[in-house]
Amino acid sequence: MRLAILAHEKFPDRAKTAVGLLRYTDHEVVAVLDRDHAGDRVRDHIEDVQDAPVVAGIDDVPDIDAFVVGIAPIGGGFDETWRDDVTGALERGAEVWSGLHYHLADDEAFAALADEHDTRLWDVRDPPEDLTVAEGVARDLDATVVTTVGSDCSTGKMTATCELVEAARERGWSAGVVPTGQTGIMIEGWGLPIDRTISDFTAGAVERMLVERAEEYDYLFVEGQGAITHPAYSAVTCGILHGSMPDALVYCHEAGREAVHGYESFSLPDVGAHASLYENLAEPVSPTSVVAGSLNTSKLSEEDARKAVDEFGEALDEPATDAVRFGCEEILDAL
Amino acid sequence: MRLAILAHEKFPDRAKTAVGLLRYTDHEVVAVLDRDHAGDRVRDHIEDVQDAPVVAGIDDVPDIDAFVVGIAPIGGGFDETWRDDVTGALERGAEVWSGLHYHLADDEAFAALADEHDTRLWDVRDPPEDLTVAEGVARDLDATVVTTVGSDCSTGKMTATCELVEAARERGWSAGVVPTGQTGIMIEGWGLPIDRTISDFTAGAVERMLVERAEEYDYLFVEGQGAITHPAYSAVTCGILHGSMPDALVYCHEAGREAVHGYESFSLPDVGAHASLYENLAEPVSPTSVVAGSLNTSKLSEEDARKAVDEFGEALDEPATDAVRFGCEEILDAL
Repeated sequence: MRLAILAHEKFPDRAKTAVGLLRYTDHEVVAVLDRDHAGDRVRDHIEDVQDAPVVAGIDDVPDIDAFVVGIAPIGGGFDETWRDDVTGALERGAEVWSGLHYHLADDEAFAALADEHDTRLWDVRDPPEDLTVAEGVARDLDATVVTTVGSDCSTGKMTATCELVEAARERGWSAGVVPTGQTGIMIEGWGLPIDRTISDFTAGAVERMLVERAEEYDYLFVEGQGAITHPAYSAVTCGILHGSMPDALVYCHEAGREAVHGYESFSLPDVGAHASLYENLAEPVSPTSVVAGSLNTSKLSEEDARKAVDEFGEALDEPATDAVRFGCEEILDAL
Repeated sequence: MRLAILAHEKFPDRAKTAVGLLRYTDHEVVAVLDRDHAGDRVRDHIEDVQDAPVVAGIDDVPDIDAFVVGIAPIGGGFDETWRDDVTGALERGAEVWSGLHYHLADDEAFAALADEHDTRLWDVRDPPEDLTVAEGVARDLDATVVTTVGSDCSTGKMTATCELVEAARERGWSAGVVPTGQTGIMIEGWGLPIDRTISDFTAGAVERMLVERAEEYDYLFVEGQGAITHPAYSAVTCGILHGSMPDALVYCHEAGREAVHGYESFSLPDVGAHASLYENLAEPVSPTSVVAGSLNTSKLSEEDARKAVDEFGEALDEPATDAVRFGCEEILDAL
C-alpha cells in the first residue's frame, strides 16, 4: 500500500507514530504532511528510515491507498485544521487510519464520506467489544514468547520489538510482532490497543493475540508498554506481563534517564533491582527472566553510547545493546 | 432508603452483592427476592446481617425506594426471567441499581419506564466518560490511606475494608471507604468500578476518588481487588496499588486456599513472600508496608479459626485477625 502520514508542525521529534511507520512499515510512504516543513525531505530530518517528500497538505500528496494520522495532540482530540486533509483523502477513496482518542468513525461527516467512497475509517485505539478476561493459557503455547519491558514509557520497547523481529527473520527464524499500541498496530496492520481495553480484560486481550498467532510463528515478540512501577500506567504493564506469560524478557531503558518521564518527582529504580522486580512479579503466574537489555542511546555520541551500553549491561548483569544503533545479535544469542 | 434485593436462585452463597448489602448498607432492606426460598427469612440462611423476608417476586415486596440487582450470571448478562420484577419496581417509581455488564439504561423498555416514572437507572459498572491518567498525587494527600490487598479474588478485601471503617468509627476516628467494585459502590452510594475503567486510567480513577474524599476524612480505606499475581486481574490490582499510594496495606487471605480461584493450576504464593512482593512493587512509586492481615475463616470451627489466624499472623510476621469473626482491633492498633 501507498501511505501518506499527517504530522503537521510535529515532524519528526513529536511524531512518534509517523517516525515508527517510516522506520518499520512494509508499506511505501509517499508523503509526510507537515506544513512547517513543506518542501523538505524526510531524510533532511531523520536517517535510517524510508525517504519521502514533506508536503503542506493533501493536494500535494500523490496517489495513496491510506492516509494516516501520525500525531496526537495532548488529550487525543481531533485538530480541526486537519479536516481538509482527511476529507481530501476520503474523497480520493483512501482509507484513513487514526490512533486518536477521538474516533473518526464517530464523526458524521467522515463516516458519510467513507461510506460514499466505499472506504474504511480505522480507529486503531477502538478495541473490539468482545474482549474477555484471560484464561491463563499463554504459558501453554508452542511459540517462544519474548516480552519487552522497561524502566519507563518511551524507552524504546516498540522499537526494540520491531528490531528484534527484523533481526530474527534475517537469521531465518519464524518470528512475529504482537503489537499492543497504536504505532505498532499501524505498522503491523493488526493488534489490540492494550491501553484502551477495559482494565479487567487487559491480560485477556494480550492472551487473545498470542493464541491467534502462536501457530503461525516460532517466536512471538510482545511489544511492552509503560513500566510496572509507573505511577499512572503500571496496570497496563502488569496486564501485559501476566497475560503474555513470556519465556524471556528484554529490558529497555534510555541512557541518562533518572526520573519517570512527565512525573519527574518519581525517581527510576536501579535497573538491576527493577529487572528482578519484573521477574519476581511474573514468577507466581509464569516464571521468566530478563535475558538481555536494550539501551536507547540516541542522544549520545558513538563513544559515549558504547560506554553507556557496557555500564547498562553490567547493571543488568545480562548482555546489552542499543537495538537500533548496534543491532540485536546479543539479544538473539541470549534467547 | 428502603431496598429490595433481587437474588433469584442464588441466595445467599452465590449472591455476594446481596449479602454485602445486607451486612453493611445503612439503608433498610425490606425484602430479598429468591423464588427458590420464598417464605424464608434472611436469618434462616445467614447470621450477623439485617433480617428481611425472602419473597418470590416484586408483587410480594412492600414499599421501596430502590430495587437492587444483587446477583450476576456468568457473563454479566440480564436474565429475562427478572424482567417482570424490574418492570414492577420501575412502575412503582423505585430506582433500580445494577452491577451487570448489561446496562439497564441501554434497555429501551427500562429506560422508557424510568423516564415515565421520573426515577433513576443506576448502572454502577458504567464508569464516567471523563476519567484520565493518574497525576501521581495520592501520596501528598492529608488523609492516611490504607489499601486492602490479598492473595486472590474473593478473599475478603471488601469485607475487611467495611469492617475496618466501622471499627475505626467506633473508636471515634474520621474514616471512610473508597469503593472500587460494584458491591462496595452500592453499599456506599458512590465510587468508581475500577475493573471497568479503560486500563490507562485505572490508577487515575482511584486517585480521583482519594482526592475527592481526602479533605473529608482522616483515614481512607481503599477496597482492593484481585491480586498482583492473579493471571487475569493483576492489572486492576496494580493500578489500585499505585493509584492509591497507601500509607499501609492490610493483607487478606482465605484459610485453606492454595490455588487461584477459578484458575486452579496456578498455586498461590507463600503469604509472607507475597506480602513482601506487594511492598517491593509499591516502593519505587510510594513506599508502604503490610501492617496486618485478615484471614477469612468462615469455613472453619471457632477453634480451628483461632489456630489458622495465629499461623497466618506468623507467616505474615504481622498482627492478624479475621475481621468479620474476631474484629479489627489488632489491625487498627497496627495503624
